[in-house]
Amino acid sequence: MTSTYDTVSFLSDYGTADEFVGVVHSVIRSIAPEVRVIDVTHQVPAYDVRAGALTLARAAQYLAPGVVVAVVDPGVGTARRSIAVEVGDGASILVGPDNGLLAPAVAMVGGATKAVELTNRAYHLAAPGPTFAGRDIFAPVAAHLCAGVPLLEVGTEIDPAGLMPTMIPLTRSDDEGLEAEALWIDRFGNVQLNVDPDEIADHGDVVRVVAGDLSRAAQRVDTFGELGRGQVGIIVDSYGLVTVVVDRGSAAEELRLEPGDSIRLEAFADGQGAPSGASVNVQLQPRRSP
Amino acid sequence: MTSTYDTVSFLSDYGTADEFVGVVHSVIRSIAPEVRVIDVTHQVPAYDVRAGALTLARAAQYLAPGVVVAVVDPGVGTARRSIAVEVGDGASILVGPDNGLLAPAVAMVGGATKAVELTNRAYHLAAPGPTFAGRDIFAPVAAHLCAGVPLLEVGTEIDPAGLMPTMIPLTRSDDEGLEAEALWIDRFGNVQLNVDPDEIADHGDVVRVVAGDLSRAAQRVDTFGELGRGQVGIIVDSYGLVTVVVDRGSAAEELRLEPGDSIRLEAFADGQGAPSGASVNVQLQPRRSP
Amino acid sequence: MTSTYDTVSFLSDYGTADEFVGVVHSVIRSIAPEVRVIDVTHQVPAYDVRAGALTLARAAQYLAPGVVVAVVDPGVGTARRSIAVEVGDGASILVGPDNGLLAPAVAMVGGATKAVELTNRAYHLAAPGPTFAGRDIFAPVAAHLCAGVPLLEVGTEIDPAGLMPTMIPLTRSDDEGLEAEALWIDRFGNVQLNVDPDEIADHGDVVRVVAGDLSRAAQRVDTFGELGRGQVGIIVDSYGLVTVVVDRGSAAEELRLEPGDSIRLEAFADGQGAPSGASVNVQLQPRRSP
Repeated sequence: MTSTYDTVSFLSDYGTADEFVGVVHSVIRSIAPEVRVIDVTHQVPAYDVRAGALTLARAAQYLAPGVVVAVVDPGVGTARRSIAVEVGDGASILVGPDNGLLAPAVAMVGGATKAVELTNRAYHLAAPGPTFAGRDIFAPVAAHLCAGVPLLEVGTEIDPAGLMPTMIPLTRSDDEGLEAEALWIDRFGNVQLNVDPDEIADHGDVVRVVAGDLSRAAQRVDTFGELGRGQVGIIVDSYGLVTVVVDRGSAAEELRLEPGDSIRLEAFADGQGAPSGASVNVQLQPRRSP
Repeated sequence: MTSTYDTVSFLSDYGTADEFVGVVHSVIRSIAPEVRVIDVTHQVPAYDVRAGALTLARAAQYLAPGVVVAVVDPGVGTARRSIAVEVGDGASILVGPDNGLLAPAVAMVGGATKAVELTNRAYHLAAPGPTFAGRDIFAPVAAHLCAGVPLLEVGTEIDPAGLMPTMIPLTRSDDEGLEAEALWIDRFGNVQLNVDPDEIADHGDVVRVVAGDLSRAAQRVDTFGELGRGQVGIIVDSYGLVTVVVDRGSAAEELRLEPGDSIRLEAFADGQGAPSGASVNVQLQPRRSP
Repeated sequence: MTSTYDTVSFLSDYGTADEFVGVVHSVIRSIAPEVRVIDVTHQVPAYDVRAGALTLARAAQYLAPGVVVAVVDPGVGTARRSIAVEVGDGASILVGPDNGLLAPAVAMVGGATKAVELTNRAYHLAAPGPTFAGRDIFAPVAAHLCAGVPLLEVGTEIDPAGLMPTMIPLTRSDDEGLEAEALWIDRFGNVQLNVDPDEIADHGDVVRVVAGDLSRAAQRVDTFGELGRGQVGIIVDSYGLVTVVVDRGSAAEELRLEPGDSIRLEAFADGQGAPSGASVNVQLQPRRSP
């Protein structure tokens, strides 16, 4: 018995200035015409595996069941493996390079139930050069998987436990506060941190946010609307993580932050709150209910 | 009897750098798999409700019947209402925030025949935070409407006359000419004005265009091809409005214009034309024939 | 007997900031609801016919059979013809302006078997202005062709041999090396040249790349992985052409190159290789097997 899939979710760092994305869509269309391809985003910064991995993890629990193609691949054409990872006992399959890009998303949806290395060239396109694996390997394999080719047919089974992980930095707390990291800066300049709301439960209503030489008093609020225009705030974002925001402005610009930068959250020494004494790891948990 | 729809047209200020757009597509796909989602644009400037409203109004008469999801929403999570507005007695439904974003498009296609506030949380996604209404409210409601859920089931009926309007500025004429506004600057730098061709019918073949300190003589032409390369012209654009252009160049750069800027159109004092004496409102009329 | 098509591949210089692309999708959806529209790219630089033509040619052999709509059209509204070009005896039809945009793609897939000028206005939309031919002419014609309207019904037959060509520059070899051109710079800064690998077969393992005042020693490799980070290399790219690259960096920035710039490839005078004595034209060949 074979599974078939009717949706491919597609994420990459291809950008949209070139024809790369359109060609991948076309290859899938030619092999599996009924499949719908949904673009997650193609604006992952070039070669930034970690940013791509975090983006895919944020999206993962909302994606329609099917095949996911993810390509951020600085090592294209080298010894890094091309893989397909099954999750949910076949509910979905993630296809891409084995460089850490898929790991957080796989974890988000419950972990891998099977994995293969894409060694069967019968399901690849013949290519004049080795640099466009999205077109020549990942897209055709994804399309064939959608069309009912069994997972074990597209390559050699490998141990899912041996896949390349991606590290999400832990927070670290000390006497003065919490040392965190800017995980993601979205289009609006909101700065998502690797901080669970529980970690700053005792910090009080106003938190000192320190980034490099800059320091701001941030109001803890539930929505942007509780802030004055341009005021810095801290919210729990739509993914459940602590996020620094500016109402109708860019917190990233206000604090000159880039993804990966360090940022400190400190309680004000007015008795309203004190730093928690223990480090709590950020938890990117699978969705509680479907 | 229930209506079903098979197209969702989707406009936002989400940009395409993050996964927002892909996640909205995925949510719709999961709830109503047969629906096709057409992206109108997601590059509305962040929080710019007026630009989004004008873009949606320009597109409105060309959209396939169905559900429109529009999200430019600086007040997300505040008291502003989430709404669905029916037009054409059920021909289409527009879903989004009640902040003026939908109003010009609704007017373009003949006005609202019904409206509801999206109060029925049974059709929303459970969300860890309140900031991603596109994913958690508008997309699932749109998908359920497509799948046949009646409009009055997704919320409480409200008076369409009470929806937030968007103001389109009127032109103002004086002895020397017409005081207008740059409504829209497109990718090519063409500057669409809030001016109906009738308003400058008496201005002659060459019009003085004044923007701040800059002044240019603009040739009135039917097509770009009648201009020399780099020459400033005035055409009636593909939406029927007066537009300042430069052949194979950017009129916005030439005149240093931004959307919302004032601009004057003056007849040259050579007897070829004189300013009209009365202000005429720009008319964004519904399409004459289908 | 009529042909029908279920895929429209769509390339333009419309960008995605405005509603142009969404409106074209919507027009097609309204006329031919079953058709899938695949966006090749809409980020061709504004008015850059040559860049659009090269992009379409690179994509051509991978596109699903159907109708191609291509719009890069500085002469919109002028005397330049609107055309539809049949290839493969009806396997696909390319629709767009007759300004050289379609020619290289047509050649890539075996040449035109028929062509018409789009003179039958019954298949166009009525338009308030002449500047949005994508919406008013190309999209509706493409949709009607998909729906089964015969090619000769949408216009007047013309001689395919009379279509506007696009020139791809030849390389020129002299005693010191090969004078080439940067055809395309992709998102990653890779610089594709108009050079077939055969042309530098005798150049040795290290090639001197000269661009303006800058000169670099480039290692000839099969994959990026053989280079050190930041090192300049020469590979055969995924389209079979010689390409200058930098591992995890931008060769275009390293050598300050723009599309269309001249670039020289020279053998080092160490006996490892000598310039070939004859100019070989770059060959954009049709795909060898389907």
